[in-house]
Amino acid sequence: MTQKPPANQESGSSAYQLWGGRFSEQPHEALQELNISLPYDARLYADDLDGSKAYAEALMRAGHLNAAECDKLVKNLELIRYDWVEHLIKFEASDEDVHTVNERLLVELTGDLGQRLHTGRSRNDQVVTDMKLWLRKAIRETLGRLRQLIEAIVRQAEAHLGILMPGYTHLQRAQPVQFSHWLLSHAFALREDCQRLTELRDRSNVLPLGSGALAGNPLGIDRAWLAERLGFAGVTGNSMHAVGDRDFVVDFIYCCSMVSLHLSRLAEDLIIYSTKEFDFIKIADTFSSGSSLMPQKRNPDSLELIRGISGLITSNLTGIMMTIKGTPSTYNKDLQFDKQYCFQAYDKLTQSLNIAVGVVETMKVQRHQMESALSSDMLATDWAYYLVRKGVPFRQAHHHIGCVVALAEQRGVDITEVPLGELQQICSAFGADIASVADYGHNVQQYDAIGGTSTASIVEQLRLLKNLIKELRQES
Amino acid sequence: MTQKPPANQESGSSAYQLWGGRFSEQPHEALQELNISLPYDARLYADDLDGSKAYAEALMRAGHLNAAECDKLVKNLELIRYDWVEHLIKFEASDEDVHTVNERLLVELTGDLGQRLHTGRSRNDQVVTDMKLWLRKAIRETLGRLRQLIEAIVRQAEAHLGILMPGYTHLQRAQPVQFSHWLLSHAFALREDCQRLTELRDRSNVLPLGSGALAGNPLGIDRAWLAERLGFAGVTGNSMHAVGDRDFVVDFIYCCSMVSLHLSRLAEDLIIYSTKEFDFIKIADTFSSGSSLMPQKRNPDSLELIRGISGLITSNLTGIMMTIKGTPSTYNKDLQFDKQYCFQAYDKLTQSLNIAVGVVETMKVQRHQMESALSSDMLATDWAYYLVRKGVPFRQAHHHIGCVVALAEQRGVDITEVPLGELQQICSAFGADIASVADYGHNVQQYDAIGGTSTASIVEQLRLLKNLIKELRQES
Amino acid sequence: MTQKPPANQESGSSAYQLWGGRFSEQPHEALQELNISLPYDARLYADDLDGSKAYAEALMRAGHLNAAECDKLVKNLELIRYDWVEHLIKFEASDEDVHTVNERLLVELTGDLGQRLHTGRSRNDQVVTDMKLWLRKAIRETLGRLRQLIEAIVRQAEAHLGILMPGYTHLQRAQPVQFSHWLLSHAFALREDCQRLTELRDRSNVLPLGSGALAGNPLGIDRAWLAERLGFAGVTGNSMHAVGDRDFVVDFIYCCSMVSLHLSRLAEDLIIYSTKEFDFIKIADTFSSGSSLMPQKRNPDSLELIRGISGLITSNLTGIMMTIKGTPSTYNKDLQFDKQYCFQAYDKLTQSLNIAVGVVETMKVQRHQMESALSSDMLATDWAYYLVRKGVPFRQAHHHIGCVVALAEQRGVDITEVPLGELQQICSAFGADIASVADYGHNVQQYDAIGGTSTASIVEQLRLLKNLIKELRQES
Amino acid sequence: MTQKPPANQESGSSAYQLWGGRFSEQPHEALQELNISLPYDARLYADDLDGSKAYAEALMRAGHLNAAECDKLVKNLELIRYDWVEHLIKFEASDEDVHTVNERLLVELTGDLGQRLHTGRSRNDQVVTDMKLWLRKAIRETLGRLRQLIEAIVRQAEAHLGILMPGYTHLQRAQPVQFSHWLLSHAFALREDCQRLTELRDRSNVLPLGSGALAGNPLGIDRAWLAERLGFAGVTGNSMHAVGDRDFVVDFIYCCSMVSLHLSRLAEDLIIYSTKEFDFIKIADTFSSGSSLMPQKRNPDSLELIRGISGLITSNLTGIMMTIKGTPSTYNKDLQFDKQYCFQAYDKLTQSLNIAVGVVETMKVQRHQMESALSSDMLATDWAYYLVRKGVPFRQAHHHIGCVVALAEQRGVDITEVPLGELQQICSAFGADIASVADYGHNVQQYDAIGGTSTASIVEQLRLLKNLIKELRQES
Repeated sequence: MTQKPPANQESGSSAYQLWGGRFSEQPHEALQELNISLPYDARLYADDLDGSKAYAEALMRAGHLNAAECDKLVKNLELIRYDWVEHLIKFEASDEDVHTVNERLLVELTGDLGQRLHTGRSRNDQVVTDMKLWLRKAIRETLGRLRQLIEAIVRQAEAHLGILMPGYTHLQRAQPVQFSHWLLSHAFALREDCQRLTELRDRSNVLPLGSGALAGNPLGIDRAWLAERLGFAGVTGNSMHAVGDRDFVVDFIYCCSMVSLHLSRLAEDLIIYSTKEFDFIKIADTFSSGSSLMPQKRNPDSLELIRGISGLITSNLTGIMMTIKGTPSTYNKDLQFDKQYCFQAYDKLTQSLNIAVGVVETMKVQRHQMESALSSDMLATDWAYYLVRKGVPFRQAHHHIGCVVALAEQRGVDITEVPLGELQQICSAFGADIASVADYGHNVQQYDAIGGTSTASIVEQLRLLKNLIKELRQES
Repeated sequence: MTQKPPANQESGSSAYQLWGGRFSEQPHEALQELNISLPYDARLYADDLDGSKAYAEALMRAGHLNAAECDKLVKNLELIRYDWVEHLIKFEASDEDVHTVNERLLVELTGDLGQRLHTGRSRNDQVVTDMKLWLRKAIRETLGRLRQLIEAIVRQAEAHLGILMPGYTHLQRAQPVQFSHWLLSHAFALREDCQRLTELRDRSNVLPLGSGALAGNPLGIDRAWLAERLGFAGVTGNSMHAVGDRDFVVDFIYCCSMVSLHLSRLAEDLIIYSTKEFDFIKIADTFSSGSSLMPQKRNPDSLELIRGISGLITSNLTGIMMTIKGTPSTYNKDLQFDKQYCFQAYDKLTQSLNIAVGVVETMKVQRHQMESALSSDMLATDWAYYLVRKGVPFRQAHHHIGCVVALAEQRGVDITEVPLGELQQICSAFGADIASVADYGHNVQQYDAIGGTSTASIVEQLRLLKNLIKELRQES
Repeated sequence: MTQKPPANQESGSSAYQLWGGRFSEQPHEALQELNISLPYDARLYADDLDGSKAYAEALMRAGHLNAAECDKLVKNLELIRYDWVEHLIKFEASDEDVHTVNERLLVELTGDLGQRLHTGRSRNDQVVTDMKLWLRKAIRETLGRLRQLIEAIVRQAEAHLGILMPGYTHLQRAQPVQFSHWLLSHAFALREDCQRLTELRDRSNVLPLGSGALAGNPLGIDRAWLAERLGFAGVTGNSMHAVGDRDFVVDFIYCCSMVSLHLSRLAEDLIIYSTKEFDFIKIADTFSSGSSLMPQKRNPDSLELIRGISGLITSNLTGIMMTIKGTPSTYNKDLQFDKQYCFQAYDKLTQSLNIAVGVVETMKVQRHQMESALSSDMLATDWAYYLVRKGVPFRQAHHHIGCVVALAEQRGVDITEVPLGELQQICSAFGADIASVADYGHNVQQYDAIGGTSTASIVEQLRLLKNLIKELRQES
Repeated sequence: MTQKPPANQESGSSAYQLWGGRFSEQPHEALQELNISLPYDARLYADDLDGSKAYAEALMRAGHLNAAECDKLVKNLELIRYDWVEHLIKFEASDEDVHTVNERLLVELTGDLGQRLHTGRSRNDQVVTDMKLWLRKAIRETLGRLRQLIEAIVRQAEAHLGILMPGYTHLQRAQPVQFSHWLLSHAFALREDCQRLTELRDRSNVLPLGSGALAGNPLGIDRAWLAERLGFAGVTGNSMHAVGDRDFVVDFIYCCSMVSLHLSRLAEDLIIYSTKEFDFIKIADTFSSGSSLMPQKRNPDSLELIRGISGLITSNLTGIMMTIKGTPSTYNKDLQFDKQYCFQAYDKLTQSLNIAVGVVETMKVQRHQMESALSSDMLATDWAYYLVRKGVPFRQAHHHIGCVVALAEQRGVDITEVPLGELQQICSAFGADIASVADYGHNVQQYDAIGGTSTASIVEQLRLLKNLIKELRQES
């Protein structure tokens, strides 16, 4: 029996295609330009090779290859990996995707044998498997970068414990808080991002390989073994679902979007705090840029880029959801865009996290400016508590203090400057001891419930975050 | 000491406001119209009362109320609940939100005492707590509806085991599969939705109450006790984070969006399958509509609405993310829109799930039409495996069969009608036994790896899903 | 020949349905709940009646009704309008939409005659026509509100001409500008919104009525006459396109989104300018809110709500585009959601514009604080121009001034305090006359090219905007 | 007076930066990686050079350069253009963006003189000008491609005039229409896209150059002259608005999104029509792909990619709107992402249009399959009109025919097979002449109102579109 190579190779064409027997014409160049996903999926080469090695072994275990054949395939797949690592791969115009490249190279190296590898496998289950292998690493890397940022935050918070600043709601001065308390609030948002990513890592860790094009695998492949071999905790439960499922990609882009929103809010705070008018924070020169026209400018470009990236990543979420919504079940080509969305989300988040780490590590905390910005009206809540302790119901106390604030504002004075007599006209419960409710530092220490702005509470927050850092370090 | 009621009540105005002492004018009606969130948040009344009851007890435990006072507050909060349940609440024009209504009613019932409840609490931590209490129930309800849909799918899949249909990729006929296999593929997507919601339920189950406006609580409130009292697994770690955090709402809308995408893909399949041209499925009259002009029309409106709802829910995700991205940290009023997004996502998903359950339960499976649609070209993959078993490398076998298909198509015949001689001209490995690879039923049974379309595999899938149903039933 | 009423009425049921002859069962309540669009489309009642009156006349002109019949229909349609205006309409549970209600009422009033009105018409072309009639008014209203806001801006800009403030880029102080210049910059964005809406009004002003369900109209209806009768400039060109086209709705939501983004940026500026740290603007009490906990708070809720609305409106754009993308051509039920998206966008934009008008009209401009915020480093660009006038190439001048700024910053002094000798060490072109480049007011007047911040330029800007206001006033 | 070059060049560094005098450190590499927009904006090189040439002339006209200097600058800018065209430009690691590259090269060629060009100009007004120059060409190109697609549609529609097919609403058979009518419906959506783009072209054609960084231009630059010189119809009216305005970019991405939605709906139709079950259309081999596993597959990848691209482009719209919403007025670095969004939208739309042209030009129209799919129930509307002509009110006629359809369906026969006697039992107005309402071809010709499916109407539609094609051809 003579084994003929696929016709497109016979015919003198150097094109290696995974399909084409039934086609009389080659794809139109407009289609080819768009169809070729190699620029996007080349980064999956190692995952593709890992999957192929495991699949070769599974074919052997199922009796479709003998040990020598399997060994030869595995070794040659490793040779191909070497060429990727060393940038020795030469792409051909007809290479549709990374799977085609790897199979073409394997056939070049091993002839007929290489043409056996795809038995019972489809690009449909192959690409999902590759993506899941890639995702596992991407999650690990992202957790590592989140850890770095949390560490940077913890370091700054620890170094500046005891510094007071105005706490804001609605961007209006609300109550005095510690700088560290404010900074750590951002770490707590990131902590949940770590949780989200960890849960995704575990939830998605089931192997799709062995689902074929859609109907499953009819060749006695042991999927449970394959899963274990590739480090998965289990196998997907329905082949038609598996080949058309990109939920794990959407989940990942969602997680990236959430991180990016947190970075955007941090950036927003920092942009405002580093205006001349606030002047609480000085962004380092290395994370600032100048103007082509105005010589004095020092712009927080790094932070604005972080904010901009958040829009970009979130738009990837919209894009992939819009795409998936419009498809019937199983595999449709629209799903190919998953990689563009996913890799852009990952790459941009990586940049954003790297910059955030740098900004936080190098920013200068302007203690004097922060503490100068504390104003007596920020004691209003504590004045209300003062009245409460004197027996006034809170809602009334709140109202009385509101009147005091209005009076002071009208006169252009601090509330501490309103004479006791007038205070007592507003509420008879005022006494001379109101004067004692005027120390911002003492005030802050009262907020000692879990999560509050007292030093004890902040130290506990630091402890929680350090534990998280330790856990993340151990996992990576 | 005389306790004066808040000025806006003094002044003959019936307006009960949680603030206003420092204000000389009432809100402009344009602002008021928008500011008033009562139409959206009234549904939180029970959660608000639950939170208030617990907070009253916490105040007592911290020594700010005595047992009788606490008891009186709790009892009156229950009276207010009764009025809500019985639709006896009368709103006033000045009622800003559900928190204002509940406090106003409490003050009407208990006077000064009611004015003490808000001591150390802010609407900022109150509303997040209410939302988390609500969310817990919303997740439970949604899991219940997902379970119902999975049950409906399982019942239909079980009842129609053994029916074949063309499996599609790219909407082109791919390989024969079982109808049940296709239908169950949608249940597997929903299974992951259950997992996502369960993880969210656990992840978000930490209490924000006790965070105050942003700085925390200075009154000795025992947050750990409060958490336990309200069924939370722990407390939030940083008060500034807690009051501005809406991630749990975004997460929920995300989960709803994912479910809606799955329903949309199911609907897309069913819309296509219930065209006259496919005719695989007949949607029940009760889930169809007619045309005002064309008397014969029977339109799958229910499915198109499911598809439309998916766009609506996902747009809520875009909206809330866009809103959060644009805010600095802690509480900003923009966050008030969280409720609109969240409740619409929940309500629409509820409708969509209810319809999906009904459609699946009542749809008629057209066995004859499905099986008639199987065509011999769908055996191509198995013909390739035939050649593989004869020793032809898969990639070559694939190519040879492609040529057979092209030849048959050119002649307008089935591949089974191409004479053996001509087959052998394409590939010498063809033998007379190729005739045996022609039974769709037998073909399907070969796909017996986990997740495949053989009956054994499907029975295993049913088992997995029934276990899930049982678990969900126990939890609810 | 006996004319029987539709069977669903015969059968004792009070349900009036536009379809149902071929159905053996009524819609399931889960479907009905969702299918019924009356809560959304009732506001189209007048447009629906207008369209129906014109269609009755067209039927008469085509010989399908005689003059008396037509007259009777028209008069009774007016009676129905009266009932709508007077809130006398009673909905029935089976009323699917506003079209059903109006036809049902007409049949109640006119019997058989009313059942003739729908001849050759479909809800498909009817609803698009109604939406276009509605849109025309919505655009006019929106243009009116935009005009009001531009007027408010122009008034404030004119009243405060000559007040200086720091102009910001990247939220860092850039160059001195006039307050009026900054404020008018927002009006110029709104001017383009007016242009966008005007173009949409004209572009979409073609009549879809007469397209039937999809195939067109076979009854000799004169569409050109109908168009003129209803104030359209022409008719749609292809009936299959017309019934499935919602682009004009998407366009409108897009225009609303753009306005909302502009309002959001204005709000963002104002929120920052009304922080205690900037203190450039004081938002009126009537557009501020307080805190339930912190008595001193005066929060710019109005502005945050404007910002939040922008997210809401834009999410409607995402939603409708996502929905349309997922549908094949002609009418599909998914399109029913167009109304929800469209009306929410319109209603929320209305609220947002109303609030913006109020905020701008009532805000207090804090001249002293603005002018105090000017600092000598903002003269850097003009110092560079000084060197340019001495013959130094701009890029070098820019660099030299950058060095001066760095030196001054290092010393903690103003650039005007660096001794001439040291300036000359940096660049020999510095002379004693550099001292003259220090007057912010004089500086600002130099920017006299069109669009600049000099008073002459601003007066020209005011003229342009007043012309626009006049035009808008004439059109409305 | 000795002119020193900027310090960063003095210091032996080869870095050419447009700013930096006041900075003591270079940007961090993490920032630099992200800050550098050259990979995105290099394609603006020609627009940047055009703008610079015009600005050099404006500087001369304002007396800041003499004729020889201006001439030298202009000539050298042309030399730089040559190098770009010939791919001779060498980027340096410090090149921030295309503006930096062009200025660096100019300084390398002309020394001090080149350093004068930026006098009074800022990258803020420069980049907006470049983008507007680019956009003008992009719109022209896009209109050209839209024209090509409309031509392809018109050709196919004209070639296949007279072929009938089922018209669908809700994907259910509705009424018979002509194939050409259906195909042209897509051209009418594209026609409006042309209108949208043309309006945008005119609306945005105002020059921002001369706005400086934000305050305007103080050097006597004649902006009106500049505008004319660069082909703009006018100048922007407020400099602070001009530098922070990206609305024209958003508008363009919106227009692209709308086109992409139209292509997506066309693709959706074609994907469904080219299923084996419909089989109305055969996509050419050159626009199809195969499967790596299933030899017989011929997948409409081209159409699925068009559908996928629509999600991608629309996500760019979400992204840029989200980004703009989050910024205060004037320039903020977030706006730099405008180019990524804009260019991706343009590039992907280009690909999508090219593929759509190819698909439409090469698709095979399967007349036999289309006409075979016509079924007698599609005559139901015309049967209702038959009764109307006999005097039955339409709503009753509709109901009667619905009953006929139900009866026929129950019996499994065509409505034309229901005996007259039974028809008369349903409605006494039925006569023997009902048999004449059975010719699809005749039926279709009745729909002769403007926009209908009769041949006369379609010929008129072709005329309209050919006029449009002619206009577009003349403009390009």
